[in-house]
Amino acid sequence: MSDAARVDPALDTGRGRGPVDVSASPSAARQPLDLDEVRLEPGFWRRRQEVNAAVNLPAGWEQLEAAGTLANFRIAAGRADGRFVGPPFHDTDLYKWLEAAGWQLAAGSQPELERRVAAAVELIAAAQGEDGYVDTFVQVAAPDRRWLDLDWGHEHYCAGHLIQAAVAVHRATGSRELLDVATRFADLLFRECGPGQPRRLDGHPEVEAALVELYRLTGEASHLELAAHFLDSRGRGWLGAGTHGGPAYFQDHVSVRDARTMDGHAVRQLYLLAGVVDVAMETGEGALLEAAIRQWDDMVRRRVYLTGGVGSQHAGESFGEGWELPNGAAYCETCAAIASIMLSWRLLLATGESRYADQMERTLLNGFLSGVSLEGGRYFYVNPLLSLGEDAVLGRTRAERFPWHDCACCPPNVMRVLASLGHYLVTRDETGLQLQQYAPMRVRTSVGGQAVALQMSTGYPWDGEVEVVVEQSGGAPWDLALRVPGWCVEPELTVGGAPVEAAREGGYAVVRRAWQPGDRVRLVLPMPARLTEAHPRVDAARGSVAIERGPLVYCLEQPDQTEGTSVLDAELDVRGPLEAVWRADLLDGVVQVEADGTAPAAAEDGEPLYAPLGTWRARPRVPIRLRAIPYYAWANRGPAAMRVWIPRSD
Amino acid sequence: MSDAARVDPALDTGRGRGPVDVSASPSAARQPLDLDEVRLEPGFWRRRQEVNAAVNLPAGWEQLEAAGTLANFRIAAGRADGRFVGPPFHDTDLYKWLEAAGWQLAAGSQPELERRVAAAVELIAAAQGEDGYVDTFVQVAAPDRRWLDLDWGHEHYCAGHLIQAAVAVHRATGSRELLDVATRFADLLFRECGPGQPRRLDGHPEVEAALVELYRLTGEASHLELAAHFLDSRGRGWLGAGTHGGPAYFQDHVSVRDARTMDGHAVRQLYLLAGVVDVAMETGEGALLEAAIRQWDDMVRRRVYLTGGVGSQHAGESFGEGWELPNGAAYCETCAAIASIMLSWRLLLATGESRYADQMERTLLNGFLSGVSLEGGRYFYVNPLLSLGEDAVLGRTRAERFPWHDCACCPPNVMRVLASLGHYLVTRDETGLQLQQYAPMRVRTSVGGQAVALQMSTGYPWDGEVEVVVEQSGGAPWDLALRVPGWCVEPELTVGGAPVEAAREGGYAVVRRAWQPGDRVRLVLPMPARLTEAHPRVDAARGSVAIERGPLVYCLEQPDQTEGTSVLDAELDVRGPLEAVWRADLLDGVVQVEADGTAPAAAEDGEPLYAPLGTWRARPRVPIRLRAIPYYAWANRGPAAMRVWIPRSD
Repeated sequence: MSDAARVDPALDTGRGRGPVDVSASPSAARQPLDLDEVRLEPGFWRRRQEVNAAVNLPAGWEQLEAAGTLANFRIAAGRADGRFVGPPFHDTDLYKWLEAAGWQLAAGSQPELERRVAAAVELIAAAQGEDGYVDTFVQVAAPDRRWLDLDWGHEHYCAGHLIQAAVAVHRATGSRELLDVATRFADLLFRECGPGQPRRLDGHPEVEAALVELYRLTGEASHLELAAHFLDSRGRGWLGAGTHGGPAYFQDHVSVRDARTMDGHAVRQLYLLAGVVDVAMETGEGALLEAAIRQWDDMVRRRVYLTGGVGSQHAGESFGEGWELPNGAAYCETCAAIASIMLSWRLLLATGESRYADQMERTLLNGFLSGVSLEGGRYFYVNPLLSLGEDAVLGRTRAERFPWHDCACCPPNVMRVLASLGHYLVTRDETGLQLQQYAPMRVRTSVGGQAVALQMSTGYPWDGEVEVVVEQSGGAPWDLALRVPGWCVEPELTVGGAPVEAAREGGYAVVRRAWQPGDRVRLVLPMPARLTEAHPRVDAARGSVAIERGPLVYCLEQPDQTEGTSVLDAELDVRGPLEAVWRADLLDGVVQVEADGTAPAAAEDGEPLYAPLGTWRARPRVPIRLRAIPYYAWANRGPAAMRVWIPRSD
Repeated sequence: MSDAARVDPALDTGRGRGPVDVSASPSAARQPLDLDEVRLEPGFWRRRQEVNAAVNLPAGWEQLEAAGTLANFRIAAGRADGRFVGPPFHDTDLYKWLEAAGWQLAAGSQPELERRVAAAVELIAAAQGEDGYVDTFVQVAAPDRRWLDLDWGHEHYCAGHLIQAAVAVHRATGSRELLDVATRFADLLFRECGPGQPRRLDGHPEVEAALVELYRLTGEASHLELAAHFLDSRGRGWLGAGTHGGPAYFQDHVSVRDARTMDGHAVRQLYLLAGVVDVAMETGEGALLEAAIRQWDDMVRRRVYLTGGVGSQHAGESFGEGWELPNGAAYCETCAAIASIMLSWRLLLATGESRYADQMERTLLNGFLSGVSLEGGRYFYVNPLLSLGEDAVLGRTRAERFPWHDCACCPPNVMRVLASLGHYLVTRDETGLQLQQYAPMRVRTSVGGQAVALQMSTGYPWDGEVEVVVEQSGGAPWDLALRVPGWCVEPELTVGGAPVEAAREGGYAVVRRAWQPGDRVRLVLPMPARLTEAHPRVDAARGSVAIERGPLVYCLEQPDQTEGTSVLDAELDVRGPLEAVWRADLLDGVVQVEADGTAPAAAEDGEPLYAPLGTWRARPRVPIRLRAIPYYAWANRGPAAMRVWIPRSD
């Protein structure tokens, strides 16, 4: 660990950095830009950020009060009487909200939000014990159980979110109060759960990545050492021993270096791997990075939904077996989509390979964004690819968004991603800039010592035309790399109106120039609506197609269909054309995709479940027009039947 | 309840009856035969019974000792020290084993088994408290919690299995010792949990059907009244209130008369409905019977696997949403198949409709029988329709049979069904006999007061020829009804070699004659192998076919396939012929079905999970020969890939 030890940096050097700061990491291939170096301009994502700031964050604060999250801290601080309420990890709802608030404050002064952050930070500091311990569940409800119930107790998990909140608040505002709280707790963790201490391993990974980030901020080697220690401790079957799910649920059935597949609880697995990549970027250990890449490959080849969602099983909120990707029973927890984004981002930074940015794009715009309502303030915990809607005959529906939840992990997790979204859009290295995601934005940064400013204009994700205007650049040449998404077949690139044959390096169109102010780069990513099919081993998508357009996955939702025809019985004629139509009035503005299809001529009720071959092909069907909307926008008009995979007729 | 009250019958009148005795039930349409009235002769089911007696029962007794089931009773009886081990319902493993042993003893003297039964009965009696209470979990581990944890405590559930064991032992052997234990406990239940007592409702139905059977045996009206009371108490949301799954898991979200769908934990739902039908047959209440029929219809139209298995979700071991029938993730607990058989049997007795016998046949020969190994002594708890087999890349496999289990509900449940199988084969009513299931057997009973004897010869389920020879009959005419299975298209019936146009009454071929010894009836049920498809709403079977032959569902298992081709990538050419071949050497003797198909020309590894339409149809495939075995026989050659639904090519 000695080669990675850095001592006593000025803490303020990290001011302005985003969630992952690998500026001093020896094995990072790419660097994120600072918080103030990328500013979203009006457009698709900026709108999501505005709703986040105007609705999600204020409503979230009220929910933290209503749910007792803040009360738990008051009790722990000795300022109120009462009993602990909520799950053992209840503290993290506040920590994630604080992290989101921190990133939000980086966008500028917001007095009401600042007052709430200050109040929360002061309260957490007051709740912290003399020795640095803070975990209101243990402090209030189980004071004699410290570190004794780590399988399910989430003490390290809570510490991780505290650290991430502290890093955010510090980087965004410069305030050190919460950072001091977090650092004292991290130091305690090292003393009481670190190397040489017996079997103190948390059932829910999260603290590993947090500790690495704290190390990046403070330079204190023990934080990195502790993260590595927790990773090295895995694979001995301590967690979940003797229980039904066993150690695999906790990713404790195999060492992190030997793991080959995504296993067990999806959020745990992905948070763990985020920590693995973080440690690998600091230590340079190839085996760690290779293990994470191997598991990421396993995910995208066998265990991820078209939406980027992961978690095929409600039981254990877990990854499924290979190709087990049921539609209605999909779990696809919003937090798991977030965790997948966190992992892919770190792999992108570690390797510079565009496939990680591709997967981020898919996940952000589909399986992540479906987790929050268009108007804000309502969330999905579970994001299925099929809903039967409301039907008295069918019973339960899973299509209701909720304003909060007993286990409210997802809402503040959504908030922290949206508030920090600018962090994930552009990277740089010594050769130049890489435009990883497309949105209207301004970029002001430096490349090889020269100040660079760009403006990106685009109607993305509705329109694949991306225009980049160089507003400032020094005289030295540098590479402008634009990611060509995996879904794009024939990109066109022009510089100053003239077609250029850009180098295609690992998924990027790269133009090297001595850029001048006024230079214009135009990337056209044609996005005709298209049909996608799944690997034949995927039972749930066999004989079906999905509509995609550009980076968006589409779905059929009942409110858009012709009266009297159920999306559950529709078939799509794959020989017919797909027609994309901008609908400003629909769902905050979307491109709708229309297709020809058929529906049964008569009602389906009373049909047998199984019948001789040919039974259903013999049933008369009538032509209908199918209208698809982006998946992220479903369930904003009440519970309704919905499907992503549509049976094909041809 | 007064109209149903019957007082003080001579207990011995019930001697020789099977699991369900509706001989005095006012609303039963059909009667089962007595235990000694139907004897299986050598053939398919007799072989299963012999393995059950020779392997399952003796090994089960050893497992009861090894698992601590018997030890718990010794501790409760004050004969040993120690702590309770196992789940709260651990006692039922012994009770179900005892029930199986009881039915087995009806077949004749078996000294070793009789000694074990006597020892078990004596031990249970010794464990019973002064007031009649017996439940070793509460007695040993939670003596102050009687009736206080009924959501999960299983006290009534345990009582139900005790009662069923006592009924079996009494009917088979005439011994009253266990019956006295059960009756005392039932009387205590009535006093402490019956009408007028507060909210004492068990989270796991089972006692209701048991109490009705005890009422049928003893004539004591309070047993029936208590069963009805438990049914009437449901639907108030007491059970599971405030928990994640809520009351629906426990079928406590809706009253038994208003329920429309199969919901929640599958075994709980089906045991509950068995009790509903039992009460309805005694009280004649139409609303109860209609509710059960409505839910059974929901099951067979939306929530049952082709194998007869039920339970689509590992989470909650539950029924799924409509048409949610994933293959690899299927739960299909063996106990749920048994519970489904119990419900269908009662509905058959209540209504006389052949569709219930059809569903029993499907479930018995497929989703139930898959739960036990061919050689006996190894079991499946979960019976999926797809297995990836053992593969280091894929991780876990669910294809391992186990000799016992921490929650060993299934093994002794299998034993009690196999030991009592003769009970489920033939019924009678005032008009004659109904042959419900086909197997070599001798029947000696009476019809309308005249002694009747038949011999049935058949190679079923391999061969659809069924010959029935009348060996004895009086001079009066009576109806011989032979079920024509729903899968059979063109049955042929001859009497004395001459084709007859039998009346087809509700799924039965019925011949009314003044039968004479020597009369021969021959029913031919042609069973060409056939292809079946599922309703288009079933995601998991879309674009696929299943092979069936007669009452058997087939599957592709890897050991039967050509080296180098995975069943996971096979497609079946639906235009090709299916060829059935008797294979005496294979899996205890099976008819194998062969079909033409294709497999990828090159290995699939590394293929994308999603790709543009047409990607996979463009991949070269080579012809292969597919060889299918009956589903019940899979996983008898070690873990291997298996699938029931096979993608079609045409």
